[in-house]
Amino acid sequence: MSKMKYLFHGDFVTAHPEPGELSVYENAYALVCGGVLEEITLVKPAIGDDVIEIDYQGKLIIPAFSDVHLHAVQYVTTGLGYDKELLPWLTDYTFPEEARFADRDYAARVFTDLVHDLWSCGTLHSSIFSSVNTDATVLLGKMLVEAGLSAFVGKVNMDRNGGVDLEETTEESVHETIRYLDLMAPLEDYGVKPILTPRFAPSCTPELMHQLGQLSVERGLPVQSHANENLDEIDWVKRLFPDSRDYISVYHDFNLLPTGKTVMAHCIYNTDAELEMMHECDVLIAHCPASNANIASGIMPSAYMLGKGLRIGLGSDIGGGNRLFMGHHVSAAMKQSRLRWALTDRASRILNFAEAFWMGTAAGGSLFGKTGVLIPGYAFDALVIDDRHLSRYRPLDVLERLQRFIFVGDERHIVARYCNGEFLSEPGTMVK
Amino acid sequence: MSKMKYLFHGDFVTAHPEPGELSVYENAYALVCGGVLEEITLVKPAIGDDVIEIDYQGKLIIPAFSDVHLHAVQYVTTGLGYDKELLPWLTDYTFPEEARFADRDYAARVFTDLVHDLWSCGTLHSSIFSSVNTDATVLLGKMLVEAGLSAFVGKVNMDRNGGVDLEETTEESVHETIRYLDLMAPLEDYGVKPILTPRFAPSCTPELMHQLGQLSVERGLPVQSHANENLDEIDWVKRLFPDSRDYISVYHDFNLLPTGKTVMAHCIYNTDAELEMMHECDVLIAHCPASNANIASGIMPSAYMLGKGLRIGLGSDIGGGNRLFMGHHVSAAMKQSRLRWALTDRASRILNFAEAFWMGTAAGGSLFGKTGVLIPGYAFDALVIDDRHLSRYRPLDVLERLQRFIFVGDERHIVARYCNGEFLSEPGTMVK
Repeated sequence: MSKMKYLFHGDFVTAHPEPGELSVYENAYALVCGGVLEEITLVKPAIGDDVIEIDYQGKLIIPAFSDVHLHAVQYVTTGLGYDKELLPWLTDYTFPEEARFADRDYAARVFTDLVHDLWSCGTLHSSIFSSVNTDATVLLGKMLVEAGLSAFVGKVNMDRNGGVDLEETTEESVHETIRYLDLMAPLEDYGVKPILTPRFAPSCTPELMHQLGQLSVERGLPVQSHANENLDEIDWVKRLFPDSRDYISVYHDFNLLPTGKTVMAHCIYNTDAELEMMHECDVLIAHCPASNANIASGIMPSAYMLGKGLRIGLGSDIGGGNRLFMGHHVSAAMKQSRLRWALTDRASRILNFAEAFWMGTAAGGSLFGKTGVLIPGYAFDALVIDDRHLSRYRPLDVLERLQRFIFVGDERHIVARYCNGEFLSEPGTMVK
Repeated sequence: MSKMKYLFHGDFVTAHPEPGELSVYENAYALVCGGVLEEITLVKPAIGDDVIEIDYQGKLIIPAFSDVHLHAVQYVTTGLGYDKELLPWLTDYTFPEEARFADRDYAARVFTDLVHDLWSCGTLHSSIFSSVNTDATVLLGKMLVEAGLSAFVGKVNMDRNGGVDLEETTEESVHETIRYLDLMAPLEDYGVKPILTPRFAPSCTPELMHQLGQLSVERGLPVQSHANENLDEIDWVKRLFPDSRDYISVYHDFNLLPTGKTVMAHCIYNTDAELEMMHECDVLIAHCPASNANIASGIMPSAYMLGKGLRIGLGSDIGGGNRLFMGHHVSAAMKQSRLRWALTDRASRILNFAEAFWMGTAAGGSLFGKTGVLIPGYAFDALVIDDRHLSRYRPLDVLERLQRFIFVGDERHIVARYCNGEFLSEPGTMVK
């Protein structure tokens, strides 16, 4: 961690650790010491010679985005096959593509671009599914380290229902998981960590689930998976795990819902008991609105779930979701909450902009430590947005400018990225 | 119209005048004479010295997009106020903004950018609402002519419920409409035409509707308006026009549904009688999925309506919709059809990719004459897409490449635009 001290000047806007109103500090100063935000003030503070001033006057400075659910190995097929639902889409498009990542060169080419594009989009933290292939997964981890991005990167476990090219035996899956954990260990100091990744309950035998759960308990490892995305999938899980109360309980029954360390993607069709269980285990739900539309899954009741106190981040879910830029998903979360309201229950709560932005920054960021907000004591992981082109006709206030960036802008408007207070330069081609 | 002959080489994909499968001509040749496509062949034809060859080998060539519903005067407020529903959104954000367009300089600045960005996004045809201001509307028309874009441009009529800054008297509204028609006349030869634009029924007194209907009948003028977007709006229309059977009938009763010459935006909540009336009058429905989500209107049953034989184009509905690029709206139409299916009726039809692409090109294009498809006898209005970056990992077929462009790509991938067979250069700043 850098010991440097910086004073940033610009128009700051941030969510808070809990959902609620956004805070705006216009024409303000942020003092960052050793990578951590010390204070934001509207008056320029007296500073010593050891503080470097960085002037972004007139530019927006916002917390970095966190993408808490994406599949690195689906980056090539993103946008394809959206005429299908989840299960045939997996079989026809996704599994054959994932098998290609046994080829290291192919993996290197795709991951080089993905890592670059994550950087470009200001997604400085992400929770990623790789493929079953250990070496490809570790390669991705190394590339993320070289780019200076924080991430959880999971080697996928799948010992059934994955097709001949992809499926592992239970023994292989466990053995490769341990090999992957060993290979990932040196990356942890650089902010890239392993995460147990049983693909989803139908892909794993009870024996594999059991062994992964043991690993999680013994080593204190986090877990990511999918749940309650699609009605056919839910029926299938019921048949495969008749002894578990419901889908979320399957993971819980196998010790795969470690408290405060679980990311569960989709969670569209939950019982109240499942919501309560996820709340108790402090699960981070990865809401993936674009994907949920593209493959006809449904609309997660995000506002209702926020009302129940659940922690909800956003996932691009590449390649079910079709855009990497998280502003698209903040926007999609708002859109879908409105559509759900219009189509199902007009007495229900609607997600507001502050909550959607909170999901894409603060809530997602909570998975990665003290980040995701521009609040004293948190890491200064921030994006600088040059939005002059978006607000050039007449003055807009800072919150309007943020909305314009999210709804109309894209990664082209991000002109600088800071991670732990340090400028993050553009990743090159890192393939050796 | 140019007399030149061109032979284009590339990978062509097109919808047809009626919805159905897309046609692909890979590594093919399109002969264009006098702006019209004569034939597409897989073997290079024998050509004379008078034919200029234009080689786009390996690039996609698709029909130009048509945006059949957008508000030029909301370009500045796009992305703002999506925490509101239609009626408060209009009052708080839209009407105050539209009043600014009485200032010619402001209008010129915004329209210069809008016209540039339509060009940039490959939207070569559009049906546009301006504001009540005649001079701003005509200025926009002239700018579109200078840019070489085809459009219908409407001076908005609004003699009630528009607020003090914007509302006209009935007499002013009619008088200004006639002045606008006179001023627009010289632009018609260049493909920019007037269209009667009663904002929506609640904005117009029966007397104004009556006089506009007379104008439409006498001069054979097309009409654009809004209908059935929002439940509160529909209730309001019932109270304002108690003698009409339903919302669509209000327009019909005042001769504002001229056959084959009407664009009706939104049409989410239609009775079967309304659908039948729109079918009989060959109305072009402007489906605006992004807008319908942003301001919580609902989801138009697009697949059901296509099944009834209705003609449905796509509208960005700037500023209710938040992106100008029509690929976003092709994608949004697919997403929303899937969500409607998942949330309301899983026995219903779902919109497929070919239909959504048809809406954004062929159906929308049908408003502007023989364009919107790459079929012999139609104008060669086309976009050249350099998608090498989107398909660089391994070969994709042409339909997959088109899907990648629509779902993952954007205007950055459009490298050339042709209108009536002629290359369309980038519009500069045209304000005199």
